[in-house]
Amino acid sequence: MAPRHQKGGDGGEVDLEGDIEAPLLSSGSSFFQDAAHEDGEGDEEQRRRRRRFLLAGCSQSNTTSQVALVGADVCPIESLDYELIENDVFKQDWRARGRAHILRYVAIKWALCFLVGALAAAAGFVANLGVENVAGAKFVVTSNLMLAGRYGSAFAVFLVSNFGLTMFAAVLTVYVSPAAAGSGIPEVKAYLNGVDAPNIFSLKTLLVKLVGCIAAVSSSLHVGKAGPLVHTGACIASILGQGGSSKYHMTCKWLRYFKNDRDRRDLVTCGAGAGIAAAFRAPVGGVLFALETVSSWWRSALLWRAFFTTAMVAVVLRALIDFCKSDRCGLFGKGGLIMFDVTSDYITYHLVDLPPVITLGVFGGILGSFYNFFLDKVLRLYNLINEKGKTYKLLLAAVVTICTSCCLFGLPWIASCKPCPSDTEEACPSIGRSGNFKKFQCAMNEYNDLASLFFNTNDDTIRNLYSAGTDDEFHISSILVFFVASYFLGIFSYGLALPSGLFVPVILTGAAYGRLVGMLIGFQSTLDHGLFAVLGSAALLGGSMRMTVSLCVVILELTNNLLMLPLVMLVLLISKTVADAFNADVYDLLVKLKGFPYLEGHVEPYMRQLSVSDVVTGPLQTFSGIEKVGHIVHVLRTTGHNGFPVVDEPPFLHSPVLYGLILRAHLLVLLRNKDFFQNCTASAQDASKHFSPDDFAKRGSGKHDRIEEIEFSAEEMEMFVDLHPFTNTSPYTVVETMSLAKAHVLFRQVGLRHLLVLPKSSERAPVVGILTRHDFMPQHILGLHPFLFKTRWKKVRFGKSALSNLF
Amino acid sequence: MAPRHQKGGDGGEVDLEGDIEAPLLSSGSSFFQDAAHEDGEGDEEQRRRRRRFLLAGCSQSNTTSQVALVGADVCPIESLDYELIENDVFKQDWRARGRAHILRYVAIKWALCFLVGALAAAAGFVANLGVENVAGAKFVVTSNLMLAGRYGSAFAVFLVSNFGLTMFAAVLTVYVSPAAAGSGIPEVKAYLNGVDAPNIFSLKTLLVKLVGCIAAVSSSLHVGKAGPLVHTGACIASILGQGGSSKYHMTCKWLRYFKNDRDRRDLVTCGAGAGIAAAFRAPVGGVLFALETVSSWWRSALLWRAFFTTAMVAVVLRALIDFCKSDRCGLFGKGGLIMFDVTSDYITYHLVDLPPVITLGVFGGILGSFYNFFLDKVLRLYNLINEKGKTYKLLLAAVVTICTSCCLFGLPWIASCKPCPSDTEEACPSIGRSGNFKKFQCAMNEYNDLASLFFNTNDDTIRNLYSAGTDDEFHISSILVFFVASYFLGIFSYGLALPSGLFVPVILTGAAYGRLVGMLIGFQSTLDHGLFAVLGSAALLGGSMRMTVSLCVVILELTNNLLMLPLVMLVLLISKTVADAFNADVYDLLVKLKGFPYLEGHVEPYMRQLSVSDVVTGPLQTFSGIEKVGHIVHVLRTTGHNGFPVVDEPPFLHSPVLYGLILRAHLLVLLRNKDFFQNCTASAQDASKHFSPDDFAKRGSGKHDRIEEIEFSAEEMEMFVDLHPFTNTSPYTVVETMSLAKAHVLFRQVGLRHLLVLPKSSERAPVVGILTRHDFMPQHILGLHPFLFKTRWKKVRFGKSALSNLF
Repeated sequence: MAPRHQKGGDGGEVDLEGDIEAPLLSSGSSFFQDAAHEDGEGDEEQRRRRRRFLLAGCSQSNTTSQVALVGADVCPIESLDYELIENDVFKQDWRARGRAHILRYVAIKWALCFLVGALAAAAGFVANLGVENVAGAKFVVTSNLMLAGRYGSAFAVFLVSNFGLTMFAAVLTVYVSPAAAGSGIPEVKAYLNGVDAPNIFSLKTLLVKLVGCIAAVSSSLHVGKAGPLVHTGACIASILGQGGSSKYHMTCKWLRYFKNDRDRRDLVTCGAGAGIAAAFRAPVGGVLFALETVSSWWRSALLWRAFFTTAMVAVVLRALIDFCKSDRCGLFGKGGLIMFDVTSDYITYHLVDLPPVITLGVFGGILGSFYNFFLDKVLRLYNLINEKGKTYKLLLAAVVTICTSCCLFGLPWIASCKPCPSDTEEACPSIGRSGNFKKFQCAMNEYNDLASLFFNTNDDTIRNLYSAGTDDEFHISSILVFFVASYFLGIFSYGLALPSGLFVPVILTGAAYGRLVGMLIGFQSTLDHGLFAVLGSAALLGGSMRMTVSLCVVILELTNNLLMLPLVMLVLLISKTVADAFNADVYDLLVKLKGFPYLEGHVEPYMRQLSVSDVVTGPLQTFSGIEKVGHIVHVLRTTGHNGFPVVDEPPFLHSPVLYGLILRAHLLVLLRNKDFFQNCTASAQDASKHFSPDDFAKRGSGKHDRIEEIEFSAEEMEMFVDLHPFTNTSPYTVVETMSLAKAHVLFRQVGLRHLLVLPKSSERAPVVGILTRHDFMPQHILGLHPFLFKTRWKKVRFGKSALSNLF
Repeated sequence: MAPRHQKGGDGGEVDLEGDIEAPLLSSGSSFFQDAAHEDGEGDEEQRRRRRRFLLAGCSQSNTTSQVALVGADVCPIESLDYELIENDVFKQDWRARGRAHILRYVAIKWALCFLVGALAAAAGFVANLGVENVAGAKFVVTSNLMLAGRYGSAFAVFLVSNFGLTMFAAVLTVYVSPAAAGSGIPEVKAYLNGVDAPNIFSLKTLLVKLVGCIAAVSSSLHVGKAGPLVHTGACIASILGQGGSSKYHMTCKWLRYFKNDRDRRDLVTCGAGAGIAAAFRAPVGGVLFALETVSSWWRSALLWRAFFTTAMVAVVLRALIDFCKSDRCGLFGKGGLIMFDVTSDYITYHLVDLPPVITLGVFGGILGSFYNFFLDKVLRLYNLINEKGKTYKLLLAAVVTICTSCCLFGLPWIASCKPCPSDTEEACPSIGRSGNFKKFQCAMNEYNDLASLFFNTNDDTIRNLYSAGTDDEFHISSILVFFVASYFLGIFSYGLALPSGLFVPVILTGAAYGRLVGMLIGFQSTLDHGLFAVLGSAALLGGSMRMTVSLCVVILELTNNLLMLPLVMLVLLISKTVADAFNADVYDLLVKLKGFPYLEGHVEPYMRQLSVSDVVTGPLQTFSGIEKVGHIVHVLRTTGHNGFPVVDEPPFLHSPVLYGLILRAHLLVLLRNKDFFQNCTASAQDASKHFSPDDFAKRGSGKHDRIEEIEFSAEEMEMFVDLHPFTNTSPYTVVETMSLAKAHVLFRQVGLRHLLVLPKSSERAPVVGILTRHDFMPQHILGLHPFLFKTRWKKVRFGKSALSNLF
């Protein structure tokens, strides 16, 4: 019982959410809730304490399923209903669906995928267009001032414009939509795992994410746009799936069949894939990214639809770029989307190339895991600052952008000027925005190689580093300085309260790392340093993000060269293996740090030691098939639970029999419609005729009805309501002696929200508890059974990556 | 009850297999079994009737889970145990595993993947080497005779060598390993769905498949080597996973942890991917093929391991090809592996190209679905011939190879000779084996374009058709003749009793189709006819096999050109969509035709109308926790069931309580060890100490112990055995009122073999039935509930493809 009290004491948020499997007798928890309600200040204090608790890494108590860090704010969270609620209303609706109906449903589904793809492509295009123009204009002005020798003014322009852009993004994020902060991939990943946080897919978040991302990337911060585009794609998908905004009466009747979490999940998966496809022009990579990294459930049919979506992204992007070909899009076009054609026509590699490539992979893995380690530490620090208030968030962003600007402008001064190569096709030094040979402070016919790296947009720098035949263009010290600087700038730029992706900084740092390795140990190898840069990116991505197949395909699609496949594979496999020995992947880490109750796909070994009854706590709050309104209202008001077993009881039957499970959301619909009757005899089963299936449509992400919004008269409170037609008669069940590991497999594979626990012996109540997501969280289980912590937990932590392969 | 009796009457094979959920009182079924045993002739007759029944397309009765066509023979089949059997023995073994243990397990797992990849690559290399040399030698001899004007002798050599090679392959298949016939992909697909057929993964099958495939492909039959290589890869994986052959004492102690169906399933998935990777040199395509087409369960960890396996394939293949570079491998090298570099450096396409490409996709879909339709009809016909006996099988192969040879040699004579183009780099006419310009009967400086297509290995023909800048090389009539001929040759060559893949014939036909479309309507388009050929292959593949992502990637990897991606995607999506309106994909069709009880991933709509109790039939055969040996032996001898509920009964408890589920295989181990005791009081729980987990290791695919092999004395029959330590205490359960659709989801998602059905009311027996794979088969359900057949079935059949997208 101890951890349960702790939970009650921890969160005043308990009223907003639930998923608590076994409602206690309401005394304890309602006391805390009421206290929290009466005292707003105390609520804020508790929230803050909880946040600090979360961030300090103490996570032994059962709090994970209550609140989580979404963006830069702490929010209450809920689980999603992926299970089909097979009640009478659903069945009637189902039987009424004719063939035309089904065809329309399928047609709309594909139309939605098309729209998601097209809009994600448009978003990706707008993001690139914005960045190229804003950052381009900044660099043109600065470069012109540099050419004129006015270095001070140049620095002032550079600093002020970067500062302005960063603060614009930060203010937008902090004051309009805190959920838009960060990359958004952890949120999408958690959503697809069944965790619903409010506002992560709202229209506001979408707009702030897109605009903020353009500003943040343009401000020369070491942040990327791939992560934000994934979030943008998911947002677009979710908003389309919601069928427009009901607030503005923009909802469409046809779309009502999509108002459930299952269809929304599919769409969001497609949207996430479309985001990567739009960011890297990698349609196949996008599908694989959605499959490998973000989604928790996958079906063959979904593969096809995701593929269709990313194909649409590719087609629309191509059309938009063609439109821009004749200089109609300002500075866009020269730089363009990230698309690095590695120009060496035919890549050959031999046995002598293997040692440097393997070395690259090994150290890439080490650097990648350290990247994750440092990122974790910096994020914990940042969160301690961020929680002090909005001003502190802005201050932090200001400090980081000023430091970054100083770095980018200051560091190139330490490099010596190099004479222009005579045999280059490019202008040297390059005047204006893009180009490999930045003049910076140098004389004519000379260039500053460090400025070519620092004083550029990230995309252009990556292109420089990837370019073939430029082995002598950079000095080793320049590459080293750039590598170290971008490694840490990337770490310090993530975690600010603005949209920021992780892909591009890692690719950039990895490219520098690869060149460095190529310079140091590649002398025997026949590989070009540009190729080393590509492999370096792969190594660092593999070490940090630990994806293999999708990264491999993304890199191949980025560089448009399939012949590199075996080398890229090799590097990715090595770096992932090495890094897995140290820590978890970066998204896993972010999901944990944010406190999402993410349900892992594999079973922890200690779960085999426990049976379901070891984690279920009672007594349970159940309803009768025909229940008094007052009782329902009381239970809904005093608990936060979202599912209640419905039990038919002795007056009507010999012994109590489990009828099914009813959801809080459906109870609220029932109560709002007030279709009550006077006595508790069974109604004529026509109760469901007063409702259309639309009434039970699931509302959009993070939106929930509240019992407090419904008023009841004293007379109504004494009436009865027949729950049978609205009860899911096919809830999944386990027997209480089932091993927890197997219950976890069932819960995870089928995608449940509630799992009923039946008694072993027939002499007891027909249901003894409900398992929810939070009962499978390691913190909860180890809180209930501390002896597991002593005996097995350490081993489990150490061998996690190895163990995850066991099941 | 009716269908159950029908089942008993249908199959004398009932003794060998089981998976029957609810053991009847043994009278009825044992009567049929005994009858079958006494009368061997009647057994054969029943088997034949069953086969005819199966092939005639009558599939209303509940026979699917009993026997299936494996290769060209009918075999009894079983389900696989993917569920972890959590009994005391397992738990003790589990607790005893230390960290070193786990590391060794993981290391072996990866080592096995490496071996699978390396061996699959070697198999692919050997297959190619064999085909290039055998077919090459044949063409060299024939061409030389043609050059000398001895057309009759040339035809004789061509005919005799083709006939000899085909008959060699057919004899090998028919007499040594019938399971090696066909492509093997349906068998692998069914295996990964949980269907275990004997001998599909034996060493004999592996060797016959490889050697037979070389002979069959070399004999100029229109069969491919991709399918056989997938089967080969899966065979290699399964044999390695079995830990060597226990028959020859080659088993390794370390490998005992892999002696279960879960680990074998993972390895076989990797092996199947490796097969495609080896066939097309497409590592990413191989992984996606395994994911999209063959596997039914997928985890993120498996993606990584499959990727590692195919990466190894790529590396080893490359090394082997490098070894052959300097003419050390006979005729291999010039033709080489299928790897068609589409040489046009930069492909541009515009809006005007869209209409022909869309047309290509639409008609490709139609042609593909007709391909499946004809294939189905031809296979039913062939099977009627094949079942007459081994001689008929050989005769059929002989007829088809003679017809094929006549076509290939005869049809080029109808083409007129074309003068050699003046600006070609290639020799014209090409003398010897490969080359675009076959001289055939023409004069010097002329070539026969039809001979260039017909009188070549399939790989070389595909390369010719794909080659860019050859728009004027072929006459439209030649392409038309070749298209029609190869369309039907491909259909008639599959289904012979020899290893034969479907990929290459479809790619070949599709290439001709694409060129044809390019010639007919591509005049406005800027696309090369070689590119049309590639897109044509994609269209026909999409129309026939209905894969999208994996095919797309395979084609990209084959042609080594990423810029074609959007076009290939578009064509695939269109052709698949069009074809889905007509019929199912070719593997689905083959799986159905063979009678595998394949468990679909989606739920049929009529399942929502039924509850679990509607398909479960009783009474059930259960055991007590401490059971008399005689009773167990009797039940095992008289039924074919593989799982029995263990119920603790009143003498020890107040009321019967379900303890768990025990497997037939484990009962047989218990009985063989004869660790019995005299009285029926509870034993001291140390029974498990007499057994090591090795005793319960699952035997290899298709191998099962039989109760008849164990002898018991009369005294032993009166003794007792304690089943508790060997009973799985965590079987998955559903309540009898659960909707069948939801039970299907649970069964399929978790990968079960037995699903216990609990009573709704606590007053009845603790378990009322067992659901197995066969209870979810549409034939079984519709046999029990014919009214569903009338009302919903037709609609379901029509809207199948649409409906499969619903869930």
